[in-house]
Amino acid sequence: MKVSVIGLGLMGGSFALALKQNDSVKMIYGVDKNKDHEAAAIKNKIVHTCVPLEEGILKSDVIIIATPVDAISYLLPQVLDLMSPEQLIVDLGSTKSYLCESVKNHALRGRYVAAHPMAGTENTGPLAAFSSLYEGAINVVCDQSYSDDSALKLALKLFNDVGMKTVFMDSGDHDKHVAYISHLSHISSFMLGLTVLNIERDEKNIANLAGSGFESTVRLAKSSPEMWAPIFAQNKKFVSKALAEYIDQLSAFKQMIDVEDSPGMSEAMEKANDIRRILLIH
Amino acid sequence: MKVSVIGLGLMGGSFALALKQNDSVKMIYGVDKNKDHEAAAIKNKIVHTCVPLEEGILKSDVIIIATPVDAISYLLPQVLDLMSPEQLIVDLGSTKSYLCESVKNHALRGRYVAAHPMAGTENTGPLAAFSSLYEGAINVVCDQSYSDDSALKLALKLFNDVGMKTVFMDSGDHDKHVAYISHLSHISSFMLGLTVLNIERDEKNIANLAGSGFESTVRLAKSSPEMWAPIFAQNKKFVSKALAEYIDQLSAFKQMIDVEDSPGMSEAMEKANDIRRILLIH
Repeated sequence: MKVSVIGLGLMGGSFALALKQNDSVKMIYGVDKNKDHEAAAIKNKIVHTCVPLEEGILKSDVIIIATPVDAISYLLPQVLDLMSPEQLIVDLGSTKSYLCESVKNHALRGRYVAAHPMAGTENTGPLAAFSSLYEGAINVVCDQSYSDDSALKLALKLFNDVGMKTVFMDSGDHDKHVAYISHLSHISSFMLGLTVLNIERDEKNIANLAGSGFESTVRLAKSSPEMWAPIFAQNKKFVSKALAEYIDQLSAFKQMIDVEDSPGMSEAMEKANDIRRILLIH
Repeated sequence: MKVSVIGLGLMGGSFALALKQNDSVKMIYGVDKNKDHEAAAIKNKIVHTCVPLEEGILKSDVIIIATPVDAISYLLPQVLDLMSPEQLIVDLGSTKSYLCESVKNHALRGRYVAAHPMAGTENTGPLAAFSSLYEGAINVVCDQSYSDDSALKLALKLFNDVGMKTVFMDSGDHDKHVAYISHLSHISSFMLGLTVLNIERDEKNIANLAGSGFESTVRLAKSSPEMWAPIFAQNKKFVSKALAEYIDQLSAFKQMIDVEDSPGMSEAMEKANDIRRILLIH
């Protein structure tokens, strides 16, 4: 099997590295508009070689798109136009409704499998890629009834080969849920970083105090703006709603601090402690 | 040397375990109002034995208070009343101004060293304690000029023995800085947990989607309300201000999402990326 990976960053690079361990994958073509990323992906043996987009599509059985979601929405219809009905295309983007809607009426819609692996780190680019990124991760496949059986079967085999467990979800449900679980976490962390950096401008030595708790909470503030701005734009409705609810909770807690309502604070924190239950599911 | 540790949770228990590796410490007495914690501390060899508060003070060269900060503010003047001018008392609380102010005029103020180790985990109780918690951590000592030279020297030796590097700070500066770096992180995480738990009540399977990013950001939401409510109350002024600034940043970002200002979002996230610099200091 020959595979093209479009977008050689953390997600695409790691997928390529994981597929290389698969005996049935004989050739992996890389495609990236950033020529430094292509050179790094070849040098680090992430892909066998790099080719122009059209050549990759022509030569591959499977095409993986792992670019930021604005580029996916731009590339997906173009790639489908160039594909034949034997080929498979999979995207790994963090939003799904907009993408599924944009190709709903395409003649080759059945060859597309809309996926979102719940895996990642705060690092970006081909040098951030590693072969075990997807091992043990949950993968969400959306609107699977629109994919042909043969396309879905092959995609599920590849997801399984790289170590993921796939669950199925309506693309609207997916976008709502990830707005709370993933997208809101990133905004929470980005803005915590900004707030601390603002005070740090005026106060010396504040960085000295950063302990492991702060480091954990602010980790996602290192994430790529190029990747995240399009996600927030495409999932605007649900992200804005989740963020409004978060701001309401923070404002209510601030009010409790201001009026010294310690029992109220304790009650809110005790409720929040139940998050252990969700994290233990994994 | 004989040491009493008052409060046998994560902080006190870990301090006791670290001191036990010190040849000059011959006896560690534990004191906790929770008798189950005393039993667990003895059973797990965290302390040599447990004694009533007065007995611990009478028999010890050094007294460590590692209770929640409301109990510290209650116990600290009482313990100083019972101490002799040869003894040393250290607290490990997360707030410092209120505690320093409360004993400012005590005859034995010089025997008190106000400390805040920047170490911890989201777990609580004696079973969460481990001997390496303090290794490599920054320790903040506040208002050190109010401590006797001999008291300060012995305290610094103990902090060094358990693996910490001590920095000195005015207690007001300390409270302001930790409001941003530590206390705000905890509120951010507690309220993220609450927001996600609220939506999870209505939406099935949302927990399935929790990846490592969410787990990292929400980790501190597991923390102890008993420990944190008194911290927010004692550091009300600075915590409320930090929280107001955080809410302002989140509201501005929400506004950018709502009007689809992608360049504005990218600019804010690029600024936040500079948090790498602060985290690299460690």
